[in-house]
Amino acid sequence: MSYSKNLSKTSGAPTATGEDGLISMVVADLCAAATGKMARLRQKFSRHIAPSRDRVIEIMEKLRMILFPGYFGPSDLTDETLPFYLGTTLDQVRSMLEDQIARGFCFECPNDHCCVLSDECVQRARGIVEKLLVRLPHIRGYLITDVQAAFESDPAAKSADEAIFCYPGIHALTNHRVAHELYLLKVPLIPRIISEHAHSITGIDIHPGADIEDHFFMDHGTGIVIGETCQIGSNVIIYQGVTLGAKSFPLDEDGKPVKGIDRHPIVEDNVIIYSGATILGRITIGAGSVIGGNVWLTKSIPPNSKITQKQASRGVRED
Amino acid sequence: MSYSKNLSKTSGAPTATGEDGLISMVVADLCAAATGKMARLRQKFSRHIAPSRDRVIEIMEKLRMILFPGYFGPSDLTDETLPFYLGTTLDQVRSMLEDQIARGFCFECPNDHCCVLSDECVQRARGIVEKLLVRLPHIRGYLITDVQAAFESDPAAKSADEAIFCYPGIHALTNHRVAHELYLLKVPLIPRIISEHAHSITGIDIHPGADIEDHFFMDHGTGIVIGETCQIGSNVIIYQGVTLGAKSFPLDEDGKPVKGIDRHPIVEDNVIIYSGATILGRITIGAGSVIGGNVWLTKSIPPNSKITQKQASRGVRED
Amino acid sequence: MSYSKNLSKTSGAPTATGEDGLISMVVADLCAAATGKMARLRQKFSRHIAPSRDRVIEIMEKLRMILFPGYFGPSDLTDETLPFYLGTTLDQVRSMLEDQIARGFCFECPNDHCCVLSDECVQRARGIVEKLLVRLPHIRGYLITDVQAAFESDPAAKSADEAIFCYPGIHALTNHRVAHELYLLKVPLIPRIISEHAHSITGIDIHPGADIEDHFFMDHGTGIVIGETCQIGSNVIIYQGVTLGAKSFPLDEDGKPVKGIDRHPIVEDNVIIYSGATILGRITIGAGSVIGGNVWLTKSIPPNSKITQKQASRGVRED
Amino acid sequence: MSYSKNLSKTSGAPTATGEDGLISMVVADLCAAATGKMARLRQKFSRHIAPSRDRVIEIMEKLRMILFPGYFGPSDLTDETLPFYLGTTLDQVRSMLEDQIARGFCFECPNDHCCVLSDECVQRARGIVEKLLVRLPHIRGYLITDVQAAFESDPAAKSADEAIFCYPGIHALTNHRVAHELYLLKVPLIPRIISEHAHSITGIDIHPGADIEDHFFMDHGTGIVIGETCQIGSNVIIYQGVTLGAKSFPLDEDGKPVKGIDRHPIVEDNVIIYSGATILGRITIGAGSVIGGNVWLTKSIPPNSKITQKQASRGVRED
Amino acid sequence: MSYSKNLSKTSGAPTATGEDGLISMVVADLCAAATGKMARLRQKFSRHIAPSRDRVIEIMEKLRMILFPGYFGPSDLTDETLPFYLGTTLDQVRSMLEDQIARGFCFECPNDHCCVLSDECVQRARGIVEKLLVRLPHIRGYLITDVQAAFESDPAAKSADEAIFCYPGIHALTNHRVAHELYLLKVPLIPRIISEHAHSITGIDIHPGADIEDHFFMDHGTGIVIGETCQIGSNVIIYQGVTLGAKSFPLDEDGKPVKGIDRHPIVEDNVIIYSGATILGRITIGAGSVIGGNVWLTKSIPPNSKITQKQASRGVRED
Amino acid sequence: MSYSKNLSKTSGAPTATGEDGLISMVVADLCAAATGKMARLRQKFSRHIAPSRDRVIEIMEKLRMILFPGYFGPSDLTDETLPFYLGTTLDQVRSMLEDQIARGFCFECPNDHCCVLSDECVQRARGIVEKLLVRLPHIRGYLITDVQAAFESDPAAKSADEAIFCYPGIHALTNHRVAHELYLLKVPLIPRIISEHAHSITGIDIHPGADIEDHFFMDHGTGIVIGETCQIGSNVIIYQGVTLGAKSFPLDEDGKPVKGIDRHPIVEDNVIIYSGATILGRITIGAGSVIGGNVWLTKSIPPNSKITQKQASRGVRED
Repeated sequence: MSYSKNLSKTSGAPTATGEDGLISMVVADLCAAATGKMARLRQKFSRHIAPSRDRVIEIMEKLRMILFPGYFGPSDLTDETLPFYLGTTLDQVRSMLEDQIARGFCFECPNDHCCVLSDECVQRARGIVEKLLVRLPHIRGYLITDVQAAFESDPAAKSADEAIFCYPGIHALTNHRVAHELYLLKVPLIPRIISEHAHSITGIDIHPGADIEDHFFMDHGTGIVIGETCQIGSNVIIYQGVTLGAKSFPLDEDGKPVKGIDRHPIVEDNVIIYSGATILGRITIGAGSVIGGNVWLTKSIPPNSKITQKQASRGVRED
Repeated sequence: MSYSKNLSKTSGAPTATGEDGLISMVVADLCAAATGKMARLRQKFSRHIAPSRDRVIEIMEKLRMILFPGYFGPSDLTDETLPFYLGTTLDQVRSMLEDQIARGFCFECPNDHCCVLSDECVQRARGIVEKLLVRLPHIRGYLITDVQAAFESDPAAKSADEAIFCYPGIHALTNHRVAHELYLLKVPLIPRIISEHAHSITGIDIHPGADIEDHFFMDHGTGIVIGETCQIGSNVIIYQGVTLGAKSFPLDEDGKPVKGIDRHPIVEDNVIIYSGATILGRITIGAGSVIGGNVWLTKSIPPNSKITQKQASRGVRED
Repeated sequence: MSYSKNLSKTSGAPTATGEDGLISMVVADLCAAATGKMARLRQKFSRHIAPSRDRVIEIMEKLRMILFPGYFGPSDLTDETLPFYLGTTLDQVRSMLEDQIARGFCFECPNDHCCVLSDECVQRARGIVEKLLVRLPHIRGYLITDVQAAFESDPAAKSADEAIFCYPGIHALTNHRVAHELYLLKVPLIPRIISEHAHSITGIDIHPGADIEDHFFMDHGTGIVIGETCQIGSNVIIYQGVTLGAKSFPLDEDGKPVKGIDRHPIVEDNVIIYSGATILGRITIGAGSVIGGNVWLTKSIPPNSKITQKQASRGVRED
Repeated sequence: MSYSKNLSKTSGAPTATGEDGLISMVVADLCAAATGKMARLRQKFSRHIAPSRDRVIEIMEKLRMILFPGYFGPSDLTDETLPFYLGTTLDQVRSMLEDQIARGFCFECPNDHCCVLSDECVQRARGIVEKLLVRLPHIRGYLITDVQAAFESDPAAKSADEAIFCYPGIHALTNHRVAHELYLLKVPLIPRIISEHAHSITGIDIHPGADIEDHFFMDHGTGIVIGETCQIGSNVIIYQGVTLGAKSFPLDEDGKPVKGIDRHPIVEDNVIIYSGATILGRITIGAGSVIGGNVWLTKSIPPNSKITQKQASRGVRED
Repeated sequence: MSYSKNLSKTSGAPTATGEDGLISMVVADLCAAATGKMARLRQKFSRHIAPSRDRVIEIMEKLRMILFPGYFGPSDLTDETLPFYLGTTLDQVRSMLEDQIARGFCFECPNDHCCVLSDECVQRARGIVEKLLVRLPHIRGYLITDVQAAFESDPAAKSADEAIFCYPGIHALTNHRVAHELYLLKVPLIPRIISEHAHSITGIDIHPGADIEDHFFMDHGTGIVIGETCQIGSNVIIYQGVTLGAKSFPLDEDGKPVKGIDRHPIVEDNVIIYSGATILGRITIGAGSVIGGNVWLTKSIPPNSKITQKQASRGVRED
Repeated sequence: MSYSKNLSKTSGAPTATGEDGLISMVVADLCAAATGKMARLRQKFSRHIAPSRDRVIEIMEKLRMILFPGYFGPSDLTDETLPFYLGTTLDQVRSMLEDQIARGFCFECPNDHCCVLSDECVQRARGIVEKLLVRLPHIRGYLITDVQAAFESDPAAKSADEAIFCYPGIHALTNHRVAHELYLLKVPLIPRIISEHAHSITGIDIHPGADIEDHFFMDHGTGIVIGETCQIGSNVIIYQGVTLGAKSFPLDEDGKPVKGIDRHPIVEDNVIIYSGATILGRITIGAGSVIGGNVWLTKSIPPNSKITQKQASRGVRED
């Protein structure tokens, strides 16, 4: 007889004990293998271990130190001490990320009898982490172009330093460029945790699958949504509240959306999209185009197009 | 003579002390019972104690562990150990939440001479907490339908696990479904702290009063606003930037808004509302309707309606 | 020979050591003084020390206690103990903020041979902090009007306490009114860190330069953007998703935006701007005007204007 | 049927569940109301709450700041800021200590049906704390004499500052002089927790009951034991390993020691006791006496006595 | 070429870099595979992982909660909630201790190519932890007798609660009785870490190997030493500064002490040993004997013996 | 008029405020510039800043990682990653220790008008830290000999690892060998804080001035005292409770002890001193001597002497 069933019985007669029995009763109800809406999410708890959101965030903060040394983490670095801090932090990232990725494999694992964090899972995770580490200089190169774009495009930017310290767009892109590498390496869960953390901090929601070139600048950022299969060229600027989303998607025979189909816009080089614009579907925004604020767009446009919303009415109040 | 007046005098001649006296002077000014804009918020400080935002957030994290065991909190649970962790965490929630709710009563208390955390306040808080705990299995049942809706409606969702770990909509609904129970139990302050914390984390602002049925899915979420008297049916999907708000509200004789009137939309079953739509006032969106992006709507629509924004202008730049 | 070059050589033959050498190799690549996209952000690391985001946030939390005593920080204050807590917290703020501002000067300092945190930097920082402290009672006076505006304008507000504890608009304005004083005192970096932290928490992005009068109320708040040179009068209400931004800006001979030009709207007294409206450029919204939701506005309007979006189409689906 | 009995049954057949059931079994055994050596310490757990060792230690650290400002706690105090820090810290001590003392009453309370932290317990605790606070300047006066004694008696002391920062004797006396006041006020448990914490840190074990005059110096300190009913005069010096203990004590009719009888030495003014001396029973060490190292003494000695151990043998090895 | 050799070269010419190079130089020296006194402790660093002192201490604190529930850890337990807390804490101990013991095996492992925390090590650790958990009720039974002995033997003890909360002897015995079980299970390192932590806290040094019966009372405790092969009967009382040590030990052919030989005293039931007594070698102290303070004893004594130190000289000062 | 005097007046009439005024009254009393026993320790508080005990302890833990890598701090080091961790930790020690030593200078500074942490103080501190860092490999060489001595001399030592992880003697010597270097560099306060921390943890009290050669082993350690001017040769073993102290010391014309005179024993190579022995004064223990337990010795002895205590009396009880 399982423990939870036993607890369930206890909860049947808690008053007999002269105590209130409330906790026992709620525990029993929560453990009950009920039907319908109450169904348990997992059929069986058997030591599958999950990644930790807090730990993944901690890893991202260490990567931020590696990618922007002197700005995040210890600030009094010298040319002499920089390599020591980088090496130490890289080694910490290697160890922590390997563990989290292995936990991601474990959690998704269909095999109930699998040992906890099997050597195979750990080996796979290790290989992935090594691939990521080798890519970090490359990622950093891209981020430097993003900082330059922010500084040069925003008249309010007092210095490149300000962009690195404060701009939500740089924060979100740092997370994205790391998450995207892990997405390409087919890591489950972790890239999405990384991108959703940036979403929470900045209000910018970039799916780890989105493919974004250099010199990308998002001003203000809140409410930006960039979908999984988006492709964004060089020197693109987008403002707060812009959606690059899917318009509709094919359903399978069960009426569920088919996963993995290209369904988000392609934005070519040198495009500017103003605040609140909504661009949906696998359409192409031609290079050099400018999309006005609050525009709703679902068809491709050629290079150098300019799209604006109709004028608002003046002097009229609807109600 | 009160201490603060005394300090005020001190600040009149700080240079006489041979020290700068700056801190004393600012303290005196801050304590001064001034008039006009400087008026003090509270007439008297007398040991009324306030709830703690940090503590309320900690309680919500413990409830998240209870509602999604194995995902939040310790992850290596087994069928044997699950009830122990649930019972321990429930007891911690019971004790902490009782304290916070009693503090809420204390803070709002009109009685200046009341003893701190009187037995009466504590007893009322205890009764409320017990009612909440008994509702937790019910809340969990609803949340499981929300997870299913997210997984089935979003082609980017790789697994139900991903929705639980990462989706801001699930995070916000977990907070909301708890806050709503406390709202129904007429708890002051605490439900709003809970919902505003979710707002801060996700950009989704659901007032604790909103009444939301099962299988509710909010994609991306940033900028969603759902007002206090909203009613939302089953299987509703809404996207980022959607507002379900009040259009206008009656003012009382002092020109202040009358509180507690139904003033937000009713959204029936199976409705989809795309990003940026603004729906205001006590109107009804009929079952099965689809509201396009960026639409502005202030009148009821019948079931199965489709509403879209006018087309944008092409090739024109306003400036 | 510099250390980083040495490491670079090491990375040339890591396999010779019988170890994997991965960390050494990535360190060498990250330290390499490469060209093009890989260029280093700083030419030389020489103990310039940077402000700490975490520390600045901690200072803001202490200021929140000073500005709203009994709500944030310890809650069981009495008339007797209030001045002690204020004095202690003010002194902590004085010391911590002086350090952070001096670090800001240091980080921006062009002088590579300058000693770390020179006396001159520290003295300048000290003078600025003293000016800020003296302004705190004034700031608090403004914030009290903002709380009143929130309570009186929002039918969902149960008490002024709720507004202080929970409303993102009050949180963001508290940060802004402090950041704005520091902006006026020409402090680098710190004001922007303060305002971006509020942006992260609330989704409300107010540039420290914006000049905002009393009784300002932002409902819900997510997605609000208020630009650097905005001027906002008394008794203004704005809703979520409103942008008060720049439309375009003059470029210098290098094609970069000219910094420091007035380029954002002036909003006069008693204006209401509904959700999602976008108002761009150095235009004036006349006193008493009402701007409807999702409106796109780039020209000045006279006092008492009412502007609304065109009606949406019904019963039509674009795709 | 009680929960623990139920668990006990569960543990009878854990293998039937297909899980190991180890935790359940050990829980059941630990909860079992067994007989003999296994008997439970408390007959019933019913929300009696206990003091917290960690919290009491935290209170002592705050008192150390109050008693030695500028040495412990924040160090950059000025004449202007000192009173603010003292007031804040005193208020924190008042609140925290009141809570711990009330918990001490609660834990010792014979009344099983008593409400948790009843108003009566809290009121008693409050009165005691107020009495202690008023005594703090007096305690500080004594401690200053102890610091002077340390600096003047120890040729290795470089400054009075060193004695305050580093000397275990000063640390132990600070705890003792506070604990002794609480002992006189008949507070249960808390004084002993305070003195045992000093014992743990310094190896000096002074019972809170010991009555010690001014200018007391303990050099090195490790292994010093000073019993409950000791009386120690002014200007006494004792070295490491000295015991001022009880020799034997009357037993009651059950063969248990009778509690509360004077049974430890009286040490008059200006006595020096060298390391390792053992002085037992209600005897008097006359003023100005010197007790040599490792001496074993159980009889009173007149003023100005000199007691030494017999000489050691040379050149002989016992085994 | 290994990294450390490379660093060593760097350190040869640090001035050439225009920087001080001090850190690099010290690193190189510390990494140098030098000879003589500078020899490295480990021939090669290869990811052998070590137990963590902090973690072992944390485990002991959890065990203290399990062995004395309501005294350590959460104090407001009821008969209903006790089993939940016990189960949760036991499961945490199981997981954490398994990890630490496996690390102990790993650290001592002679196999350099062994994978980190191999399944075999983890399995061995798991078996040991399960054996310990099953013994916990037994250990608790013994500790209850120790508390009774403390309360009954010490006239200064106000309650059994005081003994549990405050007495260093109870603290040290709790650690010892756990460490002794792990010693019997042949766990490397961990038992010694546990006993040395108690030594640090209490000044009582009991080797994990010592075999101690029930009702054991150590008063004051500082300086007590109980060697590895001691055997102590029931109802024994010892005071501060007592040594139960080895007198001498046979050396092997290399002049090193032979390990694992019985070399410490046997103390039979009902013995009392007063402060500072030194008892050395594999001798037997017969049941019911009383050993006086500061006695030096290296030969067996029959039951009911009384041993005292010679009288001290009076009125004489040696110098 | 000074602030504290003002507070003092306030405290004169606290009842007039209708509040209890207790805190204000105690603050005033504590601030009062009273006479006699109540005299303030410092004449004026003027931003002299003190070292922080917690910070110094943190520095020692980092040094422990540097001196025993793989044992303390991160344990999964490899030959590749070791130098990175050493370099990072050394740089942290450099920065933190420089700050603490400068604070030590500041605190001891006679100049009231000196700026806080003047450049001169910082430069002096920097020079000292650099000298210490260069000595670390040398210190480590000595400590390795101490570990060897512990392992070879103690039959209970299972491995050298156990000695490093657990032995209080190794812990205390690590602190001592660092503190001694700082003592030689004439650093105020910090060395004593380091050695007293070891004293607190281990019960071993070694003055930073003591000069100790290689292969030094202290078994058990509790109660060992080694005075400031001791000199200890190679291969010395001492047991718990041994005192190497001063017997008496010359007084100056004010009756205060003259500081800085050689007054502690010289212990030559290969000496063993058993537990509880007390050796006082500037005497010499000749090489190869053995001192028995509890011996009291105040005269020099030639090489290879054996000294034991007189036999205890049997069968006699003094009382």
